[in-house]
Amino acid sequence: MVTRSENHELASTFLTATASLVETFLSQTMDRRDKAPPRLIAAMRHTLEAGGKRIRPALCLAAAEVVGGCADDALPAACAIEMLHTYSLIHDDLPAMDNDDFRRGRPTCHVAFDEATAILAGDGLLTDAFSLMTESPRDSVRVLLAVRELAGAAGSQGMVGGQQLDLEGAGKPVGLADVERIHAGKTAALLGASAAIGSILGGGSVEAVASLRCYGIALGMAFQAMDDVLDTTASREVLGKTPGKDQSRQMPTLVRALGVDGTRRWAEDWSRQALEALEPVANRPAAAILRGFVALCMSRNH
Amino acid sequence: MVTRSENHELASTFLTATASLVETFLSQTMDRRDKAPPRLIAAMRHTLEAGGKRIRPALCLAAAEVVGGCADDALPAACAIEMLHTYSLIHDDLPAMDNDDFRRGRPTCHVAFDEATAILAGDGLLTDAFSLMTESPRDSVRVLLAVRELAGAAGSQGMVGGQQLDLEGAGKPVGLADVERIHAGKTAALLGASAAIGSILGGGSVEAVASLRCYGIALGMAFQAMDDVLDTTASREVLGKTPGKDQSRQMPTLVRALGVDGTRRWAEDWSRQALEALEPVANRPAAAILRGFVALCMSRNH
Repeated sequence: MVTRSENHELASTFLTATASLVETFLSQTMDRRDKAPPRLIAAMRHTLEAGGKRIRPALCLAAAEVVGGCADDALPAACAIEMLHTYSLIHDDLPAMDNDDFRRGRPTCHVAFDEATAILAGDGLLTDAFSLMTESPRDSVRVLLAVRELAGAAGSQGMVGGQQLDLEGAGKPVGLADVERIHAGKTAALLGASAAIGSILGGGSVEAVASLRCYGIALGMAFQAMDDVLDTTASREVLGKTPGKDQSRQMPTLVRALGVDGTRRWAEDWSRQALEALEPVANRPAAAILRGFVALCMSRNH
Repeated sequence: MVTRSENHELASTFLTATASLVETFLSQTMDRRDKAPPRLIAAMRHTLEAGGKRIRPALCLAAAEVVGGCADDALPAACAIEMLHTYSLIHDDLPAMDNDDFRRGRPTCHVAFDEATAILAGDGLLTDAFSLMTESPRDSVRVLLAVRELAGAAGSQGMVGGQQLDLEGAGKPVGLADVERIHAGKTAALLGASAAIGSILGGGSVEAVASLRCYGIALGMAFQAMDDVLDTTASREVLGKTPGKDQSRQMPTLVRALGVDGTRRWAEDWSRQALEALEPVANRPAAAILRGFVALCMSRNH
């Protein structure tokens, strides 16, 4: 029996190994874009290569292994998801949106380049993510399902919709149901898709894909709740971005709706749901990694 | 033998019929997005439903017919291409980009809504376009090829790259090679993809797809050249947008590189190349529609 702290260690090791794999593959992917304007590619790389936990690709690769597949089959898709996530960071940071000057400890894309280039860098990463998805080395049926999963989670009814609701909620009274809907769109949808896509490309059954999607969504809800806690309690040095901004702009956060302790309990509740969703695949060796992501999420400090 | 003016008439009728088909389908597609924030959908619809010639979907549907396929098989993809084209208009009009207040005779998206909503409406249209692509009623191999074609034409090495080069060229001396590269990315890539995607989903051979892609690219080059001419010579009432802006902002246009007459000759040269590319499919009845698009392009006044 693997203990909780062993899961934690396993997940942490897996994250480090994935980050290196993903960063190498992303760099090669950008190198291949030799028909694109150099300044555009430089802007795309600026945020893409600024580090980050690479949690979404790790989730994707671990989900592929959990269903008995090979991580290599899911690597292009895992990197495509990270490109798509990076586009969302670049656009969210724009002056018309969250107006953030720092991200992952560096100037944001529109500060380092200019606003037009940042908009286009985001557009390029989003579109090129779909190009990369189609390069997944699997049969077309599964690759097309994976493309559909990603577009559904990232579009107007998923991540983009969540960001819109987030902006609309600024300065207004927040109900728990509103915040839940924002977090589901902004964060949980893409984490759910990351796990689902890994299991699709790993050759998982429809049931396994559904379980892993639920797991990813629940993990995403817990992850975003902890993000709200950290925005209240952590420093800029630890976060790599400006803390307290959500509070000062009266953004619709869980902490405003539930307080810090209530938000922690909410995160714990979602983390239990994530572990429950794993039950159908609990006997697979790689499931320990997915359990470890839950443990990591609950103990994160940045 | 169908004459040139009969082609013109045929293409014109086809455009009108397509526009109505596409607008109905797009409206239904937006109606189905009931889990998206209403204001986001309203912003997406604002530009999507403001009219326009719907040349890209028409090209896609006509290409499906030319290879002996059924237009219905290509209809979701044709509408996805129009959604993607509309995202590019919304983002190009933003204050940080071309800063346009009028488009298709209406206030642009960021004027009618706000800048953040316009950025997200563009992101939503782009992402949802890929969702819609995956709903094409064909075998997965062809649908996946179509997704790849679209992402390749629209991404950092295609449309987004062209827009970046366009902005970088403002106020600088323009060479013909620079303008050609900008037009190839900004306009011709997506027109080429529209014709290629129609032929892929219509069941065309690899050779037919390649011919139709070449045709679409050449048509796009002619189309953008005529756009530069019209920006110099037409009025706002006729264009539905502010004319003369490219000139006053010293944008890298063909007219600056070749003059008005030189640009018209350039367009004629590309229109001949478009017709030549059609030779392998010239005996198909629907090829007359594609020849008619070339005639329409050369005689356009808006």
